[in-house]
Amino acid sequence: MVYKKITLIGRSPESFEAAIDDAIERAEDTLDNVSWVEVQEQGVEVASVEGREYQVEVEVAFGLESED
Amino acid sequence: MVYKKITLIGRSPESFEAAIDDAIERAEDTLDNVSWVEVQEQGVEVASVEGREYQVEVEVAFGLESED
Amino acid sequence: MVYKKITLIGRSPESFEAAIDDAIERAEDTLDNVSWVEVQEQGVEVASVEGREYQVEVEVAFGLESED
Amino acid sequence: MVYKKITLIGRSPESFEAAIDDAIERAEDTLDNVSWVEVQEQGVEVASVEGREYQVEVEVAFGLESED
Amino acid sequence: MVYKKITLIGRSPESFEAAIDDAIERAEDTLDNVSWVEVQEQGVEVASVEGREYQVEVEVAFGLESED
Amino acid sequence: MVYKKITLIGRSPESFEAAIDDAIERAEDTLDNVSWVEVQEQGVEVASVEGREYQVEVEVAFGLESED
Amino acid sequence: MVYKKITLIGRSPESFEAAIDDAIERAEDTLDNVSWVEVQEQGVEVASVEGREYQVEVEVAFGLESED
Amino acid sequence: MVYKKITLIGRSPESFEAAIDDAIERAEDTLDNVSWVEVQEQGVEVASVEGREYQVEVEVAFGLESED
Amino acid sequence: MVYKKITLIGRSPESFEAAIDDAIERAEDTLDNVSWVEVQEQGVEVASVEGREYQVEVEVAFGLESED
Amino acid sequence: MVYKKITLIGRSPESFEAAIDDAIERAEDTLDNVSWVEVQEQGVEVASVEGREYQVEVEVAFGLESED
Amino acid sequence: MVYKKITLIGRSPESFEAAIDDAIERAEDTLDNVSWVEVQEQGVEVASVEGREYQVEVEVAFGLESED
Amino acid sequence: MVYKKITLIGRSPESFEAAIDDAIERAEDTLDNVSWVEVQEQGVEVASVEGREYQVEVEVAFGLESED
Repeated sequence: MVYKKITLIGRSPESFEAAIDDAIERAEDTLDNVSWVEVQEQGVEVASVEGREYQVEVEVAFGLESED
Repeated sequence: MVYKKITLIGRSPESFEAAIDDAIERAEDTLDNVSWVEVQEQGVEVASVEGREYQVEVEVAFGLESED
Repeated sequence: MVYKKITLIGRSPESFEAAIDDAIERAEDTLDNVSWVEVQEQGVEVASVEGREYQVEVEVAFGLESED
Repeated sequence: MVYKKITLIGRSPESFEAAIDDAIERAEDTLDNVSWVEVQEQGVEVASVEGREYQVEVEVAFGLESED
Repeated sequence: MVYKKITLIGRSPESFEAAIDDAIERAEDTLDNVSWVEVQEQGVEVASVEGREYQVEVEVAFGLESED
Repeated sequence: MVYKKITLIGRSPESFEAAIDDAIERAEDTLDNVSWVEVQEQGVEVASVEGREYQVEVEVAFGLESED
Repeated sequence: MVYKKITLIGRSPESFEAAIDDAIERAEDTLDNVSWVEVQEQGVEVASVEGREYQVEVEVAFGLESED
Repeated sequence: MVYKKITLIGRSPESFEAAIDDAIERAEDTLDNVSWVEVQEQGVEVASVEGREYQVEVEVAFGLESED
Repeated sequence: MVYKKITLIGRSPESFEAAIDDAIERAEDTLDNVSWVEVQEQGVEVASVEGREYQVEVEVAFGLESED
Repeated sequence: MVYKKITLIGRSPESFEAAIDDAIERAEDTLDNVSWVEVQEQGVEVASVEGREYQVEVEVAFGLESED
Repeated sequence: MVYKKITLIGRSPESFEAAIDDAIERAEDTLDNVSWVEVQEQGVEVASVEGREYQVEVEVAFGLESED
Repeated sequence: MVYKKITLIGRSPESFEAAIDDAIERAEDTLDNVSWVEVQEQGVEVASVEGREYQVEVEVAFGLESED
């Protein structure tokens, strides 16, 4: 099985873990076989939100079945 | 909203700015919510073109609504 | 023509070249105009396979015609 | 508006998020317009503290009004 | 003479060169002896502006005379 | 005192902090003088676990007394 | 299970794959649970050998049972 | 055909594109088969020039015929 | 205590150690609590000086008390 | 003896090893004392060739005798 | 012969060269066949020592005979 | 004036500064207008020499007059 990786940015007011989960859940809406995630960048938005917004850019890897 | 980033290479005989615009416009043909662009690589093709061809590899970030 | 790059991970019990070919052939199943490949990471799986499994993460570049 | 980025290291016995907050709050003591934060390095001090001390080096970006 | 480098982000609707100039001019408002600039990151804002906004993160180097 | 650094990968179903603690505790089973930890990579395993498994690759630094 | 990674340099007159295998086999002489390998650097020695000597620096990951 | 890459720094008071052209033209004075250019670093000299001097470090690739 | 890091370039006709000391001493003129230094870049100026001028770009870390 | 390194790109329809050999042999046409090679980039050309063309960018190191 | 690389941090009040020697000598206490050293990071401790303490993180490579 | 950069490796039994000087002096044998040097890598050879041999890979920049 060939794997493909896409780059997503998840966000959460709670924690980096929740921001990653935000991205994983979005990936699983349209993709089967989501397998693992690699963290690329972590940041915090301060000015345009109340409190803090944790942001994580991740690569999400998933197995390709029969279409891209 | 989760963001997704894709990698495009735009080209122009004029300038790096125009090469990036070439990529942005192509992205907007099929994607809503194009939000920002990060420059990854810049190059110039010399041998196979007349004059110069400016090439820019960019990551284009856009907001995901309901499909991937 | 604007180019797009996607990230795939091919695998082979034989060699890194065959693992890359695995990724290219998968790309060509659904994409026209596959143009070139850049190697990003190379690894070998040992524990969960018989013998060795060569794995290569590649960026596959292809020309965009009229859809993303 | 031009933005400036400074590099701070925040610390917390609780979590990386709290260590970043430590840095943001210190920045806001003397700076207006703190806008966002980018994580550069994460570490944990073990030997010289009780329990764990989470340390995060961040770049803090803020808008410049009329002085540096 | 010891040099110091600070990190600024300049912006322009015209070009990357103009965005860098935006940062240099802001630096010269409060600093003497601005000597050279190194480009760190280049990007384009699309969603929140009319047209394009070119953004360049630069390190600005200047000679230190008698205070920091 | 000379310091040595080794590379470990800790894992936890809870958080990145707990995954790092997993690695530190394993290091302290066989090493004296564990001093600090630097985070190298963060990831999340999705496919082969229930829920999430947070994984952190760390460099663990410790003081060398009289043997390697 | 915590994983540990060590850095080895394998060599072969034949191919990069054989050089990696040289490192893996050496690792398996003294370590249980060798799991995967990541390629760090590839080179070829020319001057001090007959023909070519392929050299690969790899990180070898293995599961830690009860000692370091 | 084997390609060779050399590193040049071109300069211009006008733009980064013109600075790159300065390097390409110098390369073409003594080299045949100049094929493409990759941008490595971009900077601006401020202190020792009137106005601005744009500087670009590039790798220039060219085909090798019969001499180095 | 939050730490801040600034980037300085020290210079010396003698050695890299002396160039770093040049930067540290300049930092201590205006900053309390200078704690450690990390080397970023090392270079040697040849053309515009007699003999050699060793140059080191360093990050200087210091503890923040009550102002930025 | 001082060593010099040059950057070459070798190509082969067979394998990465053969592409590197292509570059080494070209270097040895005009240089004495070719000593070792470091792999910088690996790629595969797909669109403009029959089958595959393996391409490797290498740094070739060689000892300098009496001219550059 | 397979080589192994370990990461050590040597320290000296005198110079970077002496700090590296500190690490090499420690390595040679317990390892045969120490072959070469690669510098990874250089720093200077200021706050907790008298004068300066030069610190160098190095990778020490040594040939493996019959045990790890 | 366009500048060119070449990569040399100088060596010395004394210090890194002397190893760099070894490379600069070799460059000045065949090149006019040697301007500055950037340190790329530092290492120490242990096994094949008496005592230590300091090795520095540098980029040497020089102004191009009328030939390459």
